[in-house]
Amino acid sequence: MSGPLSDIRVLDLTWVLSGPFATMLLSDMGAEVIKVERPGMGDIARGNEPNVNGVSTYFLSLNRGKKSITLNLASPEGKEIFLRLVDRADVVVENFVPGTMSRLGIGYDALKERNSRLIYAACSGFGQNGPYAAKPAFDIIVQAMGGILSITGEPGGPPVRPGISLGDIAAGLFLCIGILGALQERQKSGLGQMVDISMLDCQVAIQENAFVRYLATGEIPAPLGTRHPVFAPFQVFPTEDGYIAIATMGGVQDQWPLFCAVIGRVDIIDDPRFETGWRRSQNHAMLEPIINDALRMRTTREWLAEFETVNIPCGPVKNIAQAVADPQVAARNMITEVSHPQAGKFKVVNTPLKFSRTPGHIERASPDLGQDTEEVLSRLLGMTGAEIARLMETGAI
Amino acid sequence: MSGPLSDIRVLDLTWVLSGPFATMLLSDMGAEVIKVERPGMGDIARGNEPNVNGVSTYFLSLNRGKKSITLNLASPEGKEIFLRLVDRADVVVENFVPGTMSRLGIGYDALKERNSRLIYAACSGFGQNGPYAAKPAFDIIVQAMGGILSITGEPGGPPVRPGISLGDIAAGLFLCIGILGALQERQKSGLGQMVDISMLDCQVAIQENAFVRYLATGEIPAPLGTRHPVFAPFQVFPTEDGYIAIATMGGVQDQWPLFCAVIGRVDIIDDPRFETGWRRSQNHAMLEPIINDALRMRTTREWLAEFETVNIPCGPVKNIAQAVADPQVAARNMITEVSHPQAGKFKVVNTPLKFSRTPGHIERASPDLGQDTEEVLSRLLGMTGAEIARLMETGAI
Repeated sequence: MSGPLSDIRVLDLTWVLSGPFATMLLSDMGAEVIKVERPGMGDIARGNEPNVNGVSTYFLSLNRGKKSITLNLASPEGKEIFLRLVDRADVVVENFVPGTMSRLGIGYDALKERNSRLIYAACSGFGQNGPYAAKPAFDIIVQAMGGILSITGEPGGPPVRPGISLGDIAAGLFLCIGILGALQERQKSGLGQMVDISMLDCQVAIQENAFVRYLATGEIPAPLGTRHPVFAPFQVFPTEDGYIAIATMGGVQDQWPLFCAVIGRVDIIDDPRFETGWRRSQNHAMLEPIINDALRMRTTREWLAEFETVNIPCGPVKNIAQAVADPQVAARNMITEVSHPQAGKFKVVNTPLKFSRTPGHIERASPDLGQDTEEVLSRLLGMTGAEIARLMETGAI
Repeated sequence: MSGPLSDIRVLDLTWVLSGPFATMLLSDMGAEVIKVERPGMGDIARGNEPNVNGVSTYFLSLNRGKKSITLNLASPEGKEIFLRLVDRADVVVENFVPGTMSRLGIGYDALKERNSRLIYAACSGFGQNGPYAAKPAFDIIVQAMGGILSITGEPGGPPVRPGISLGDIAAGLFLCIGILGALQERQKSGLGQMVDISMLDCQVAIQENAFVRYLATGEIPAPLGTRHPVFAPFQVFPTEDGYIAIATMGGVQDQWPLFCAVIGRVDIIDDPRFETGWRRSQNHAMLEPIINDALRMRTTREWLAEFETVNIPCGPVKNIAQAVADPQVAARNMITEVSHPQAGKFKVVNTPLKFSRTPGHIERASPDLGQDTEEVLSRLLGMTGAEIARLMETGAI
């Protein structure tokens, strides 16, 4: 093990995406992540297609580097083994509907009696309290209820989902931050605590700008295509052969005059409608056609060269294949290869967490269901092969 | 100070969004965040409209809880003060174009000589190495180049930007994780290190599913409106009076038969085209009209009641005003009020990081430019009022 978290052990009860994304980040940073799964079935994401040689790519991507043990938490023996593992763990993570763990007798109150240093991190659709606490939720539900679909899409058009499972991914990132924050605090106090992450809360948090604009002005934010709500020009424009993204800096270092010079429209530099980034944003309906007419005259490649020369931030709009082939993505080693016994060599996205002295890395491929049960139970709990075989027979593991 | 990071001091050189979002999270968790700004000018986001009583809401939202000191890092005296503060800091964070800090003589190599325990966290458009390292970038540029615009929008339509500055927000979240990971490691080694976060890397990381699907199958992901790429039904559908988000669980607990029963179409339960979530996703063009016809017959409210009864995850599509008014958002205390001397009482988004034993909170409003210079220099460096007055005269602070 290497990486900044190489002394941290995580019991990972999470499934599907939000929790597994968080524990993937911990694993990439060197933590020992022991995925605890139901015997016979495991994380339902093991069944998520598309597959490579019968192995789920969805599961492979999120669970690389982790170990898997099977435990029947509803059986007294399975529960006892879990509690003994809790004695030796730094962190327990789960993303069940609130109340599930307590009903099994292994809620935070029970676990902290066993291990006062334990960090117990829970991620759920709506959090551990409030009127919706017991409601089940997946990604699209919290994206819809948090408002982001209402500000994504074409002006006047129907709601659009950002192209990723941002309900889960945002919650996974905050879940990881909460766990690390609690670990830092434990260094002083010697005590663990519970971290309670709500996917809906996280939607509100990542939209702080839209929420605060509404709270301050009373104007309800609406979808804007590709443009930014308070700066302009700061969006994607069509060119002769495709699209270009341009982001001028406003304020005291306003690049507007430079931008006008590049597109050959010095005549509008002093137009009072376009005086500041905010005014250009407010008068966008008049501004956009002027810019569109200018940029449609040349190719994306030609415009990129022009804007780069004067240091105006710009870039091409890439699809996923083009992003994969990007030389910067390669230079940063963001696509890496892992070997899986059944799936063979396959490519996954590498961690964006780059540490100079203790770099993390992907230790190994995603685990088969229960492949590490014996190793973990013998190493951590001192169980013998005979004991483990008996537990397997009773269905506890 | 309270919160899990109450023993951590951060020198925050960041500006605009990605860095300030990360240090806001640290501040909400109780860290002392000292924003270091240029005399006279400060973070250019102080000028970002809309304003409340002349104060930028954009700046207020991101910088609540922080302190502000002014330092001219280009002057020898200003630099010397900065180095003395580095001696007393746990973390330095910056989001300049790579090379900026080294040109000022305060790059990581120089700072670690002063303080070997220092965590130096840098966030940039493309990271500290690679062919694009020196290019400037703002949010929309890395969103365009990372591919997410190409998978957001209507099928066959133009690129659409997710409604938030996801290039900055994602990078800010990873930046916070990197800082906390390095702090955790320092407990063992006693040593700091550099954390190098690239906004483009973070775009790749949050799109792991799209990248891995492409890498495994060679099919280039495309925009899908509101639907999920590998599950169905898992999207937003129009109803008689609006929209509803529905997310059925697939796999071994497939809710498809239940879903069909609710919409009154038990006849399609065993249709081989719709046998699994993946097949329904592949045959979506045939499935969607069937569901649309059924759901258009009743209101969102009526359908929510139906789906909730059978525990199929569902929710309304809310706009920002409706999300603000949501009782769950209120129960979780996600909107909170801060008092600012000039702006008055204003509402901001609260932290989604909920800790049971050491809850964080928002200590105070955003700082005026340099309002804490005297307090910080006298408390941390033992400077007298006369010394500080002289430095002010020379323009070093």
